Amino acid sequence: MNRTQLVQEIKKKKSFLCVGLDVELAKLPEHLPKDVHGILQFNKEIIDATRELCVAYKPNLAFYEALGVEGWALFHETVQYIGDQHFVIADAKRGDIGNTSRMYAEAFFHKMNCDAITVAPYMGADSVQPFLGFEGKWVVLLALTSNPGSSDFQQRILQEEGIALFEKVIQTANTWGSPQDTMYVVGATHPALFTTIRKWAPEHFLLVPGVGAQGGDLEAVCENGMNSDVGLLINASRSIIYASSGPDFAQKAAEEALKMQQAMEKLL
Amino acid sequence: MNRTQLVQEIKKKKSFLCVGLDVELAKLPEHLPKDVHGILQFNKEIIDATRELCVAYKPNLAFYEALGVEGWALFHETVQYIGDQHFVIADAKRGDIGNTSRMYAEAFFHKMNCDAITVAPYMGADSVQPFLGFEGKWVVLLALTSNPGSSDFQQRILQEEGIALFEKVIQTANTWGSPQDTMYVVGATHPALFTTIRKWAPEHFLLVPGVGAQGGDLEAVCENGMNSDVGLLINASRSIIYASSGPDFAQKAAEEALKMQQAMEKLL
Repeated sequence: MNRTQLVQEIKKKKSFLCVGLDVELAKLPEHLPKDVHGILQFNKEIIDATRELCVAYKPNLAFYEALGVEGWALFHETVQYIGDQHFVIADAKRGDIGNTSRMYAEAFFHKMNCDAITVAPYMGADSVQPFLGFEGKWVVLLALTSNPGSSDFQQRILQEEGIALFEKVIQTANTWGSPQDTMYVVGATHPALFTTIRKWAPEHFLLVPGVGAQGGDLEAVCENGMNSDVGLLINASRSIIYASSGPDFAQKAAEEALKMQQAMEKLL
Repeated sequence: MNRTQLVQEIKKKKSFLCVGLDVELAKLPEHLPKDVHGILQFNKEIIDATRELCVAYKPNLAFYEALGVEGWALFHETVQYIGDQHFVIADAKRGDIGNTSRMYAEAFFHKMNCDAITVAPYMGADSVQPFLGFEGKWVVLLALTSNPGSSDFQQRILQEEGIALFEKVIQTANTWGSPQDTMYVVGATHPALFTTIRKWAPEHFLLVPGVGAQGGDLEAVCENGMNSDVGLLINASRSIIYASSGPDFAQKAAEEALKMQQAMEKLL
């Protein structure tokens, strides 16, 4: 899905919600079997309940890999079930030397048919560039993540540049790709830093985790982070998919997603 | 495998060689079928030919994921075939927020029964710590990688600390784990920086890629990087597994591995 199509979907649905499909066996509603079949059923019901309210889905690979070989089949089936009307982000946080990153691009863009993959920047240019240059495919590069550990390295000031590492990452990655093929991950838990981010990346889409269970504030993020193409994909995982642990989980997920869509509609 | 066992294996075999199992369909010897069965046969023959000459194997997940769901089954079968007499490193370069990294630990330590996993440090403490604390299991944290892009961020000097990012990563990660459960990745392409690395991590094992196809120099690495427990695992992938593209590929791989083992024996 290219940028024009993504922006159209956002305007049509009046939503820039991304639903994170991070399912754990231990958190499945009681009536579902505690195996990959149970998770697939759960994912399908969540997807059907939220399809009209979101523009993107973001399955995090860790939750699928934790199930072993079957988990990868489950990931594939989940992506296929989502279909091509939504922007699918493989939250995989990959990145390796050049010839190896090319294999990851093959895995997620072609074998798994995802629109985007999250990539970690630590290894630099030749670890990220192999993901660029595929029509309608995107790199979503970690910049300033939502977790407490984001202060350990990402926010350190660089001596020569006088800016934080996450700013340097954006500044450098801007020379590798464009707002047509690169997004940045910026956690909602840093609302004040969205102004800084927008200084470096006024046009890019930002993938924003951390609203919901992690405590980020949607309004503050939008106030400092929205651009003329909206430019935000706000992810919520646990607050939607685990809104209820009963047989009404899909209905409750839809209600939570609707609340977020309505809040977004107001902010558009 | 714990540190004592690893050091014993190194002393017994007079080798600190790690063989990287990074197999691409396009590079399989012509007589093998161009599918996962062909790769499994290739891996098995490479493993049998090098078992006595190396102490570790490092399959890089990218090469398996590029084959889709079947690739994960292939990874699992490869790890099972290696068995428990070698140190198995899942070169996966994972790392995510806390509850997610826990799922990756589950995937690689328990489902896949690997001894170690490579982890990217960009997301900080809570992305790395969930991999620690498993008996006989290891985090191999990216510090200074072998690729050209390692100069983009890893070698930037931090203002407050006056040291490079890769040094800060080691300094910080030393407070999370110990030389019993943490190794650092340091590319052989930076031989002069091993002295700096050893200042921060005198006791840790270092996983050293970049000897072989990437041009690193074994002697220079050992001179600056070896400690009283050897403290090095030197990885070679392409120079061993693709030593020949003919039916004699396993024999040629054994010859290349033997050359490295003999060079290592001299340096011990």
